[in-house]
Amino acid sequence: MTQLIQHIENILGSKIKQPVIFETAFNHTSYVNEQKNPDLLHNERLEFLGDAILELLTSDFLFHQYPNDPEGSLSRMRAQLVQEASLAYLAKKLKFHQFIKLGKGELTSGGNQRDSILADCFEAFLGAIYLDQGLEKVKEFLQQYMFANHRQIIEQITIDYKTRFQEKAQQQGSVLIQYQLLEQSGPAHNQLFKVGLFVNNALVSIGIGKNKKAAEMLAAKNGFNQIDERGQVINVLKQN
Amino acid sequence: MTQLIQHIENILGSKIKQPVIFETAFNHTSYVNEQKNPDLLHNERLEFLGDAILELLTSDFLFHQYPNDPEGSLSRMRAQLVQEASLAYLAKKLKFHQFIKLGKGELTSGGNQRDSILADCFEAFLGAIYLDQGLEKVKEFLQQYMFANHRQIIEQITIDYKTRFQEKAQQQGSVLIQYQLLEQSGPAHNQLFKVGLFVNNALVSIGIGKNKKAAEMLAAKNGFNQIDERGQVINVLKQN
Repeated sequence: MTQLIQHIENILGSKIKQPVIFETAFNHTSYVNEQKNPDLLHNERLEFLGDAILELLTSDFLFHQYPNDPEGSLSRMRAQLVQEASLAYLAKKLKFHQFIKLGKGELTSGGNQRDSILADCFEAFLGAIYLDQGLEKVKEFLQQYMFANHRQIIEQITIDYKTRFQEKAQQQGSVLIQYQLLEQSGPAHNQLFKVGLFVNNALVSIGIGKNKKAAEMLAAKNGFNQIDERGQVINVLKQN
Repeated sequence: MTQLIQHIENILGSKIKQPVIFETAFNHTSYVNEQKNPDLLHNERLEFLGDAILELLTSDFLFHQYPNDPEGSLSRMRAQLVQEASLAYLAKKLKFHQFIKLGKGELTSGGNQRDSILADCFEAFLGAIYLDQGLEKVKEFLQQYMFANHRQIIEQITIDYKTRFQEKAQQQGSVLIQYQLLEQSGPAHNQLFKVGLFVNNALVSIGIGKNKKAAEMLAAKNGFNQIDERGQVINVLKQN
């Protein structure tokens, strides 16, 4: 038995029937592309499946956990729980970065610490549990590692968005990051602040909140997906 | 037994245990807001749940149906199957528009024919089946109505994107809709066409395809989500 399979059996507390499915979950495309083995699969199809399993089980959990919350509140929590940063956080906690197989380029550039790669591996892992052991087992796993601490996970991830945005944007060197108040509206007791996040003077994202700090955090959060893995801005917004 | 419950039992071919859940699935927010009954629920929470169930079962179906397709192809098919237009199409086929409860304003403006309202009701309906009869029953239902004809549904919906875009954009009167070739690139045998969709001279979306027609259709498809229910453009793109 490989170290990976041993590690997974320890996590799941059960015997794995089809080890190859779990091994596939840890094969990044860059690794498979470098091998000369046409039978070797990468984890993208499993990730496709795992993503949907995660979405359903998280929805089901929140639906029953918060029987009186409106849909908007459930959707926000779901988005926070299934976001890349949360999944990468859990993947690291489970030491997945020690087992992910990457191509040489990815490996030397520290790909096994990258949020997107870790999150994809985590989702592929859920897909593997589903195929090998069924939906109930995935539920049990997520209950233990995610749902039981869902509030702490959300808090942890949300707090440091500004830091994380800065790190992602400055991967290839220093850039100018500015938060600028664009608009302040509403009556005095119920004001709304609209903040723009600018990278090298280009508007990347907008956050709206009840105070400047909240608006800035949301702008950082929204901006996180507006820059790519290399720190380049994907899309510049038009300022009205 | 109400007509709605009778209709649903006919569709499902099984006895409903908790009729109130299914009735809730057909209560649009606008209807509930007008009633003076604090116990009456609208369908948004069920829709939240149904959306995730649909995503999982569709993913699971495609994963097994196309064992050799890469993730990108599965994702595209999933997106086409679970899109608003497909769900609204199925909802109409099942005569849901005859049973949706709407507020007076929505009713007089033909809300029961609107794609977004029909699609939300369809998702809420899946949530109701799940809570009342379990995941397997939802799977059986989708197998019969969606998966068995998934190719036809995708084709049907995709073909008439340009028509549908026009209808949506012109809800409140005539606007100028233009498709313009923005770029043509690649070697002669493998060219790529980039088409911009302009509404009143503002760039709303872009489509890239192997010929102008395909690019235009994709631009229309992408543009569909860039206009709101009233036909107003949500976001104007910056032209590089």
